[in-house]
Amino acid sequence: MLTPERLSLNTATVKKQWGLRECVDGCVRHGLGGIAPWRDVLHAAGVDEGAKMIRDSGLGVSGLCRGGWYTAEGALTDAVLDDNKRAVDEAVAIGAACLVMVVGGLAPGSRDIAGARAIVTEGLGRTLDYARSVGMKIAIEPLHPMYAADRACVNTLGQTLDICDQLGDGVGAAVDVYHVWWDPEILPQIVRAGPERLMAFHLCDWLVPTRDLLTDRGMMGDGVIDLKGLRAAVEASGFAGLNEVEIFSELDWWKRDADEVLATIVERGRTAC
Amino acid sequence: MLTPERLSLNTATVKKQWGLRECVDGCVRHGLGGIAPWRDVLHAAGVDEGAKMIRDSGLGVSGLCRGGWYTAEGALTDAVLDDNKRAVDEAVAIGAACLVMVVGGLAPGSRDIAGARAIVTEGLGRTLDYARSVGMKIAIEPLHPMYAADRACVNTLGQTLDICDQLGDGVGAAVDVYHVWWDPEILPQIVRAGPERLMAFHLCDWLVPTRDLLTDRGMMGDGVIDLKGLRAAVEASGFAGLNEVEIFSELDWWKRDADEVLATIVERGRTAC
Repeated sequence: MLTPERLSLNTATVKKQWGLRECVDGCVRHGLGGIAPWRDVLHAAGVDEGAKMIRDSGLGVSGLCRGGWYTAEGALTDAVLDDNKRAVDEAVAIGAACLVMVVGGLAPGSRDIAGARAIVTEGLGRTLDYARSVGMKIAIEPLHPMYAADRACVNTLGQTLDICDQLGDGVGAAVDVYHVWWDPEILPQIVRAGPERLMAFHLCDWLVPTRDLLTDRGMMGDGVIDLKGLRAAVEASGFAGLNEVEIFSELDWWKRDADEVLATIVERGRTAC
Repeated sequence: MLTPERLSLNTATVKKQWGLRECVDGCVRHGLGGIAPWRDVLHAAGVDEGAKMIRDSGLGVSGLCRGGWYTAEGALTDAVLDDNKRAVDEAVAIGAACLVMVVGGLAPGSRDIAGARAIVTEGLGRTLDYARSVGMKIAIEPLHPMYAADRACVNTLGQTLDICDQLGDGVGAAVDVYHVWWDPEILPQIVRAGPERLMAFHLCDWLVPTRDLLTDRGMMGDGVIDLKGLRAAVEASGFAGLNEVEIFSELDWWKRDADEVLATIVERGRTAC
């Protein structure tokens, strides 16, 4: 049972309906404890204006989505590294708990996933050097293996923690139930992560059938993920942050009135999580 | 480089075009070394007639698809166990190298994936007892995590081998590149499997973008999987069986003339594998 003040709205959940101003006001109106903006939404509002908007609202900021995409141009380029530095600065500006990293898939035209993972690890290390200097945490989000080719070649929490072990302090994981629920190793890896490295926890659900690889996520309770079990596991391992709701749903929730979406999130927080 | 006699046709690759008779004749005509029928195709031809057809052709049989689905009725039932015994008998009848197991996903209405995995392990053990008595090998096919809910709750080679360790001799893995290519642990797990437990090796490709979760597999060479690298790994670990081509493709290959499909398989065996 999650009361609304323990929930955070990832702005992608209402990306077709609301900009940052409406998201902030909606979170306050529905009693949510926090928000997690995507960068495009923050940019549209203006970083300084958006940061002030959020600060004035009193909402927590469970994360900024997203840095990463280190493989976008093949080898690491200044453009990619600079964009990640800007993402760190923006995360600082809005007081985010962490910068969430979607690391990128295979380099264009490549079949070398080990090579992609090496590029990503190097890129994360470079961004981490900067993030440490400004006091921002870096949260690697392992993405479901169905995104390994085109979005993120980091696909399990275990692999994420191996990278964290290599990079040292200040880097951890954003655990999204959608990406990890199937993993036979998920519970021991949550224990291994521990409180310092469990930096974010994202909620939605896995629908059966799933009609689209990217935009058919379910509202909590409408799918098959053991949400209560996974939440208990991260809390037992020391996670005490907000529970961020991130639902990509072209076929359903993006078509609804956004206040209905938030009211449903609040209700499902109480009944399904 | 795979010459045609090292290839086997999984009948699902031309399921919309050909029955067993046409598949057998097509394999012989294109010089393939083997075939792997699905049970529905075998049943349509008649098990005895189909077995004779294959035997007379001189083709090898890289596997029978498929047993499993232990969670179909929730707890293990006699109906499920009996069907798996029949699958073993059919695999023996056609001289298959192994019976391939798609183990089943969550039980109907359940969110308990650990429970599903327990049912599956018990069911596999029961089938294995019988399979040993008639000399048939059981090959567990770990399926891509995007099928964990509705098709198979065994999703990595490591998890498969943990189950094999528990069950003992006569059970191993069917390694399909489509399901395992993304796994950061795949190479060490192939080494761990070794020649006794690498019972089947399936080829196709992962397309970018993938437009459907089930029926948008690619022809070898049209996607992003490092086919040569994975084949080298299984061969280095002692696999010496046929390379079975299994492509579910509603949008492309199921619409083409089946002889064109087989000619393309032969060509891509030479150029892309």
